[in-house]
Amino acid sequence: MERKIRTDLALEVRESFPEDDVEIKGVILTEHYDKKYKIRISKVNIKDEAGARAMEKSIGTYITIEAPELNNSSEDYHKPISDYIVKSLEELTGDLSNDEILVVGLGNREVTPDALGPQVIDNLFVTRHLIREYGREFKERNHLGNVSAISPGVMAQTGMETLEIIKGVIKETNPKLIIVIDALASRSINRLSTTVQISDTGISPGSGVGNNRKALNEENLGVKVIAIGVPTVVDAATIVADTLGRYMETTGFNEEEIFDFISEVNGKQMNNMFVTPKNIDEMVKRISYTISEALNSCFSAPLQA
Amino acid sequence: MERKIRTDLALEVRESFPEDDVEIKGVILTEHYDKKYKIRISKVNIKDEAGARAMEKSIGTYITIEAPELNNSSEDYHKPISDYIVKSLEELTGDLSNDEILVVGLGNREVTPDALGPQVIDNLFVTRHLIREYGREFKERNHLGNVSAISPGVMAQTGMETLEIIKGVIKETNPKLIIVIDALASRSINRLSTTVQISDTGISPGSGVGNNRKALNEENLGVKVIAIGVPTVVDAATIVADTLGRYMETTGFNEEEIFDFISEVNGKQMNNMFVTPKNIDEMVKRISYTISEALNSCFSAPLQA
Amino acid sequence: MERKIRTDLALEVRESFPEDDVEIKGVILTEHYDKKYKIRISKVNIKDEAGARAMEKSIGTYITIEAPELNNSSEDYHKPISDYIVKSLEELTGDLSNDEILVVGLGNREVTPDALGPQVIDNLFVTRHLIREYGREFKERNHLGNVSAISPGVMAQTGMETLEIIKGVIKETNPKLIIVIDALASRSINRLSTTVQISDTGISPGSGVGNNRKALNEENLGVKVIAIGVPTVVDAATIVADTLGRYMETTGFNEEEIFDFISEVNGKQMNNMFVTPKNIDEMVKRISYTISEALNSCFSAPLQA
Amino acid sequence: MERKIRTDLALEVRESFPEDDVEIKGVILTEHYDKKYKIRISKVNIKDEAGARAMEKSIGTYITIEAPELNNSSEDYHKPISDYIVKSLEELTGDLSNDEILVVGLGNREVTPDALGPQVIDNLFVTRHLIREYGREFKERNHLGNVSAISPGVMAQTGMETLEIIKGVIKETNPKLIIVIDALASRSINRLSTTVQISDTGISPGSGVGNNRKALNEENLGVKVIAIGVPTVVDAATIVADTLGRYMETTGFNEEEIFDFISEVNGKQMNNMFVTPKNIDEMVKRISYTISEALNSCFSAPLQA
Repeated sequence: MERKIRTDLALEVRESFPEDDVEIKGVILTEHYDKKYKIRISKVNIKDEAGARAMEKSIGTYITIEAPELNNSSEDYHKPISDYIVKSLEELTGDLSNDEILVVGLGNREVTPDALGPQVIDNLFVTRHLIREYGREFKERNHLGNVSAISPGVMAQTGMETLEIIKGVIKETNPKLIIVIDALASRSINRLSTTVQISDTGISPGSGVGNNRKALNEENLGVKVIAIGVPTVVDAATIVADTLGRYMETTGFNEEEIFDFISEVNGKQMNNMFVTPKNIDEMVKRISYTISEALNSCFSAPLQA
Repeated sequence: MERKIRTDLALEVRESFPEDDVEIKGVILTEHYDKKYKIRISKVNIKDEAGARAMEKSIGTYITIEAPELNNSSEDYHKPISDYIVKSLEELTGDLSNDEILVVGLGNREVTPDALGPQVIDNLFVTRHLIREYGREFKERNHLGNVSAISPGVMAQTGMETLEIIKGVIKETNPKLIIVIDALASRSINRLSTTVQISDTGISPGSGVGNNRKALNEENLGVKVIAIGVPTVVDAATIVADTLGRYMETTGFNEEEIFDFISEVNGKQMNNMFVTPKNIDEMVKRISYTISEALNSCFSAPLQA
Repeated sequence: MERKIRTDLALEVRESFPEDDVEIKGVILTEHYDKKYKIRISKVNIKDEAGARAMEKSIGTYITIEAPELNNSSEDYHKPISDYIVKSLEELTGDLSNDEILVVGLGNREVTPDALGPQVIDNLFVTRHLIREYGREFKERNHLGNVSAISPGVMAQTGMETLEIIKGVIKETNPKLIIVIDALASRSINRLSTTVQISDTGISPGSGVGNNRKALNEENLGVKVIAIGVPTVVDAATIVADTLGRYMETTGFNEEEIFDFISEVNGKQMNNMFVTPKNIDEMVKRISYTISEALNSCFSAPLQA
Repeated sequence: MERKIRTDLALEVRESFPEDDVEIKGVILTEHYDKKYKIRISKVNIKDEAGARAMEKSIGTYITIEAPELNNSSEDYHKPISDYIVKSLEELTGDLSNDEILVVGLGNREVTPDALGPQVIDNLFVTRHLIREYGREFKERNHLGNVSAISPGVMAQTGMETLEIIKGVIKETNPKLIIVIDALASRSINRLSTTVQISDTGISPGSGVGNNRKALNEENLGVKVIAIGVPTVVDAATIVADTLGRYMETTGFNEEEIFDFISEVNGKQMNNMFVTPKNIDEMVKRISYTISEALNSCFSAPLQA
């Protein structure tokens, strides 16, 4: 059975299993709760094909940082979240300050909940061109990483698959690591813009608002890919199904029948619709700033004592 | 009973009455279909307090232009829609080329479906300052209207009610007519960005994405107000309720019970959520251009033969 | 003789007097140099009509903060500049945390060097609507100021004088203090985006990129006006005159003759031209962020120990 | 002697020769004047190495369309300019409706005079992805060209040479023709945004506001490159030199000595400064719209009679 509830968060897939407390074969879930800042860190580790099939996600590690207070809080709250992003990146890929890194901001700058990727890129400190011009000594004296960045736009704007553009750019510029930033779809309204997922699996097709069909991952790009995603939308069909489901399941229908009913009632028109909050502009601005701060601090070599 | 299905289109309110073909007291509905361009023009005329109560809309005339082909079509299709907008404006307010007119673009420029108003303003040809500088003769020689315009922003950005800002601007600049442009909420996904509602009643609180609480109308502003609105979102609770309703009503529940169920399941979190299409950027760009073309042509005096 | 060299900085007017070290009647200049951060604070105090005539600026105090390192420096450098802005504001107007304040972002958002005002507004924390909704107790518990804000656009976009818009808004919302933010023209390329001028005189006509003709000051608005300005452009005629002047003055021409020569050669076409750096986008983004941080911190009441 | 006056227009280089009416070896200049629309079409044909050396421009054809009325005129004026752009493109490259074409919008979207390229891309009708999805029959039925497009950003944003990005994209997507759009620097204020240069030589380094150092041309990209450029800035040193030059040359100095004097007076600080008009936002919006209309009409196959 195809899972029809749409979510880009591995954590939500894991939660969707009724056997919440038993183990799923091939999938390890570990959790940590930071009481001081009310931040929950979950790690879903999909270890093998069995786990991947069960989860319908690629093999790899998905770290989720949940900070439910984020939208109500002051700037001081950004620092701990940013620190957890840095820690998660380093856990997945080691020290970033010596790599040559290409950061890719996916999404459509013109559609607010999809502008997360481009907005992160706008605040990045790129350095590759400076190092090429002023040399290695300049890099070391200033404790710079080697960072390039691109916001390629979406297929409706370019006529090209994002994979084609990024593949070409990689061939010409030879980065050692790709970090892809994208807006995601979650199942829950509560997670919008308060949750960050970091994974070493690349970005699977069909994320967030966009419709990218070909995955940006190591298999396709030949370089390791870290994905950083933030849910900014809920799929419209999913929100309807979730509510309807709670009603129908009391009457014995299963998830597939519920989706079939929704399709019948709404036809195809709900396929390309998403749900997002009215103040999504502030939310995206805030979280994209936090992510770019985290990246900028990862990329700089620490100063020697 | 409070009507809980949320729509800013008088036409949709009218359609929501089960007695689709009988007359509602105090409300007159007339329709015209343009076969050539597949454009439907409906006019809802709320004549008295009885009609206003039944419709939960202000007394006045609401003209709705529906052009379902708009999103699939070429630029040539804009002209007939623009022409119908001009005709509707003239029906509601007479010749516009000699008035002093203030055009107000409501909405938040940073949230794509709410950016309709500001985008219309961006393409307007404003002339008030030119006429004040170069005089009446200049106005007549160049067949100019007397047009000023403002995009005041939303309350979350300004800390002020839009009504306060516009009232103040009117006191200082004395326009004879206000045209307010705003994004609306409709009940139907199919109407998004393909429908234009023009009314002589002003804008009622709570339209579209925004949360304006005080109406911009002649009563509050002391000047006649024409509102031009385009649905760009569906309220998230409405879309859920509509689907759920079709299911539940087979089991005998009424609308109010359905909304109660939804509130119980989703809590308050769905209150500030909206549903919008993935390509809303293109849609808003296209229809706001059509509206500004219509306004620009209204405001210029016709050249004498 | 009309002074033709165009600058909005009182400090540059003062510097333009040949008698650099003698006193100008009615004008007091005091200076402070912060060695640690390489920031120079100058205060030009125009005390009476004689000083105002000599300086061709209004009576009042102009504090200039010069931070020449700003464009090359890290984020840590923003804090001391922001602190000096706070200190200067408090010197001119006292504690800001209890006033009702309207912040006005002048300029055209679509022209990069003129977007300073709107960009400051974008990062402000406005609160007036929250206090009106949740009351005085809410304000005090959260240590909030009472802040509203508007970016009215420029006359070419609105057809209205900025003065008309702001006057109207003030009448409706009754703020006790106006803070106006604007891009300025300086005489020197070196000062672009590294200098902040804060004055208690309002904004005089013709600042920066814009063409506002009527001053936003206490006389016109009936409320005290503090102006915060940052030079982001040099007038094109000024830059030509400055260079040409250095050449011609060796041959005995005076400033007026030089400007006459330039007008003759270039005609009127240079009147509406400005000079700005290629990376003006980064510069405006950086300094507008610093200013909004300073304002946000002024407006919040200090937490009690 | 290095020519220090900076212009990207071949026509202005040609005009800079004192021998205005005699022939320069290897360079052919032909002109056409459209009296009805007051549009001048000039063609500079650089035929060989001698011409290229004299002109300091690549061998090839440079067509310049000058429409001095453009900034004062109505929308009806766009059509003839757009038609001349189409005609010039077809002269340089033949029928465009059957090629696979990649359009590249150079420049920094955040700096108004440099945003021309990205703004043209924003209004392009891209089709490559549709044709790949729906096939050749779809293309023919709808008379579509095969168009992809990208706005790669500038080196300060990406850390990469634009050449690297475009080379990579070409390798992956195999277009048969590249059309590059860029803002240019001209020598004359009068030409800003009223002049379009179309050439078959690619874009030479250092154009417009940007600092691209490696040429986008057939030699570097392996595909034919057509460049469309519009002057939106004058180099600040050039405008000073032009004025100063008129003065100094009466005293017998040559161009080189004038530039040396300017460098001495202004130092390096003027190197990255440009001059642009106050209403550059409207200008760029208008001309970029005209260019995208021209391209959209080129790319569609003509309907059969």
